[in-house]
Amino acid sequence: KHILVVPGDGIGQEVTTVGKKVLEKIAEKFGHEFTYDEGLIGHVAIEATGEPLPEETLVKMRASDAILFGAVGHAKYDNDPHAKVRPEQGLLKMRKELGLYANLRPIKLFDELLEASSIKPEILKGADILFFRELTGDVYFGKRERIEEGNTAYDTMIYSKYEVERIARKAFDAAMTRGKKLMSVDKANVLESSRLWRETVLEVAKDYPEVELEHQFVDAAAMLLIKDPKKFDVVVTGNLFGDILTDEASQIAGSMGMLASASVGDSTGVYEPIHGSAHDITGKGIANPLASVLSAALLLDISFGLKAESEAVINAVDQVLKAGYRTGDIATKDTPKDMILGTVAMG
Amino acid sequence: KHILVVPGDGIGQEVTTVGKKVLEKIAEKFGHEFTYDEGLIGHVAIEATGEPLPEETLVKMRASDAILFGAVGHAKYDNDPHAKVRPEQGLLKMRKELGLYANLRPIKLFDELLEASSIKPEILKGADILFFRELTGDVYFGKRERIEEGNTAYDTMIYSKYEVERIARKAFDAAMTRGKKLMSVDKANVLESSRLWRETVLEVAKDYPEVELEHQFVDAAAMLLIKDPKKFDVVVTGNLFGDILTDEASQIAGSMGMLASASVGDSTGVYEPIHGSAHDITGKGIANPLASVLSAALLLDISFGLKAESEAVINAVDQVLKAGYRTGDIATKDTPKDMILGTVAMG
Ligand SMILES: CC(C)[C@H](C(=O)O)[C@@H](O)C(=O)O
Ligand SMILES: CC(C)[C@H](C(=O)O)[C@@H](O)C(=O)O
Repeated sequence: KHILVVPGDGIGQEVTTVGKKVLEKIAEKFGHEFTYDEGLIGHVAIEATGEPLPEETLVKMRASDAILFGAVGHAKYDNDPHAKVRPEQGLLKMRKELGLYANLRPIKLFDELLEASSIKPEILKGADILFFRELTGDVYFGKRERIEEGNTAYDTMIYSKYEVERIARKAFDAAMTRGKKLMSVDKANVLESSRLWRETVLEVAKDYPEVELEHQFVDAAAMLLIKDPKKFDVVVTGNLFGDILTDEASQIAGSMGMLASASVGDSTGVYEPIHGSAHDITGKGIANPLASVLSAALLLDISFGLKAESEAVINAVDQVLKAGYRTGDIATKDTPKDMILGTVAMG
Repeated sequence: KHILVVPGDGIGQEVTTVGKKVLEKIAEKFGHEFTYDEGLIGHVAIEATGEPLPEETLVKMRASDAILFGAVGHAKYDNDPHAKVRPEQGLLKMRKELGLYANLRPIKLFDELLEASSIKPEILKGADILFFRELTGDVYFGKRERIEEGNTAYDTMIYSKYEVERIARKAFDAAMTRGKKLMSVDKANVLESSRLWRETVLEVAKDYPEVELEHQFVDAAAMLLIKDPKKFDVVVTGNLFGDILTDEASQIAGSMGMLASASVGDSTGVYEPIHGSAHDITGKGIANPLASVLSAALLLDISFGLKAESEAVINAVDQVLKAGYRTGDIATKDTPKDMILGTVAMG
């Protein structure tokens, strides 16, 4: 199996190094042979080649069996509304070019981290959510432009039936293997694209009579997620709403630094932390690498079908947390100072 | 002063009755003369006239000094993607016709409700946020349509400079009277409308050198709001992001049933709970009327400049909570059964 490592920007570099080490260890322990290559994306790619996703990286991506991804983004572009080239364009282009239309974001709290969240332990305990975020449509990919001499700007929130149908099927399939409950999130009381979304989900539902389907408006869902996360099981939603809700849901898992994601679709799957490049802590060696480690676990499971290997990684994370080790983001006021580790030590 | 009462749908009717009673009591106690009229909107208006916002209501709205609003919406339309007329159209038309471009949503926790939230008390204590949600632009009012024989649907997320500028000024003004901190929320790493948003906010900032301005992407903001609500003071954001973030923020106030909002702009101000029509509890007499009562307080303060009267209302709410009275949504497992009141009794 050939794995492409694409660390990207900021702490992406630091955490992906740890994720890769875990893959190497698994190969050694379980007698697999993984080969590796590396590719550039984001700000580092712009600096090196002028392109946020160079053709060379894309070719390598297509030729690999799975991709371990870091993060993209750089503060330099954030307050420059006129930058023509941006790190995020590389990420979006990768998703589109590889047809990665389904972004799976499992939200599960390790029991040891119950106290690390801002939400009450009794509200959290037992929460286990699987998000399906649509990843190649919506306002992320619709036409956008400046008009009226630059004084007006628009983006187009757009969905076609086939796009909604394929992500809905993935979510219904997952619901069948879990609690047979699916929540679809939209804003159908206002948006036409949401009405198409809801109509399509209702059609797909006919093929899954055993699954209990619920619709929520995105504003209500954002509220309910914090009020009663245990009510959620499988959730399917569009690209923008999924972006917002899954970041919010990271608080259910104690920290964004714990959350892995898998992006799958027509070709090579991409596995990445849901956190960003976090330039404020880059280079300090304190980033939590567990989201990258858990991304490696998802990679082993979903792209390689190596269930035991994947579970070995998750168990290792669990053991490390049980032993009391923490990175800063998941430490509480009761964590002894000498149990707070940096990125490499945690790895 | 002439007040138009527009209860709308579902529990809107029940809670607005209480809000109005409070206004009557204030007039009596403080020696004011308030006159009242009533107007139809939403599902009840569609049933009566075929229109979600009849011209007659709009005329009454324009002729009044302030509007006490309930909620709109009905489950009947939610799963019918092809309904031509919808209750929400009445609400959106009202906002547009009255030029209500600034929606103020203060998020403040009454100390007595510290335990009612799903978030830990130590995270919440002292949180005090004022949201400025832009209310007459964005994907709510851009062009939307079905294309490709109904198989594709789009909405247009659109902002013009002057729209961003006027809401930004209101938010900066408010920041000057509070902690001199303003957070602007957008998705400028992807959206052109957000880049115009950020560019305009940065321009307006030049007139407020004392205000510390921070930008957050909407996904990060949704996460931070739960992780550390005390970091937030004044927040300004677009219509859609504001819809999502303020509903989410309701958990900071213990319950959506506690949150009031003011919509102001070019003419008569509208005061309403941020909760919806809640058809699941309509007619049961258990809805929390305090959001409507607190909306009445905002009305007295903002539209009539009656500060003492407004504070009297807020104090009354505080006293009632201190005395231990609760509606179901803000009760905890420790609330004695006989202290849990219905809508009318709480009023
Ligand atoms: C970096 C950004 C463009 C991206 C997104 O919005 O999709 C990120 O927030 C994510 O969730 O992967
Ligand atoms: C009912 C709906 C159209 C409305 C909105 O999205 O603006 C509501 O959620 C609100 O926040 O006032």
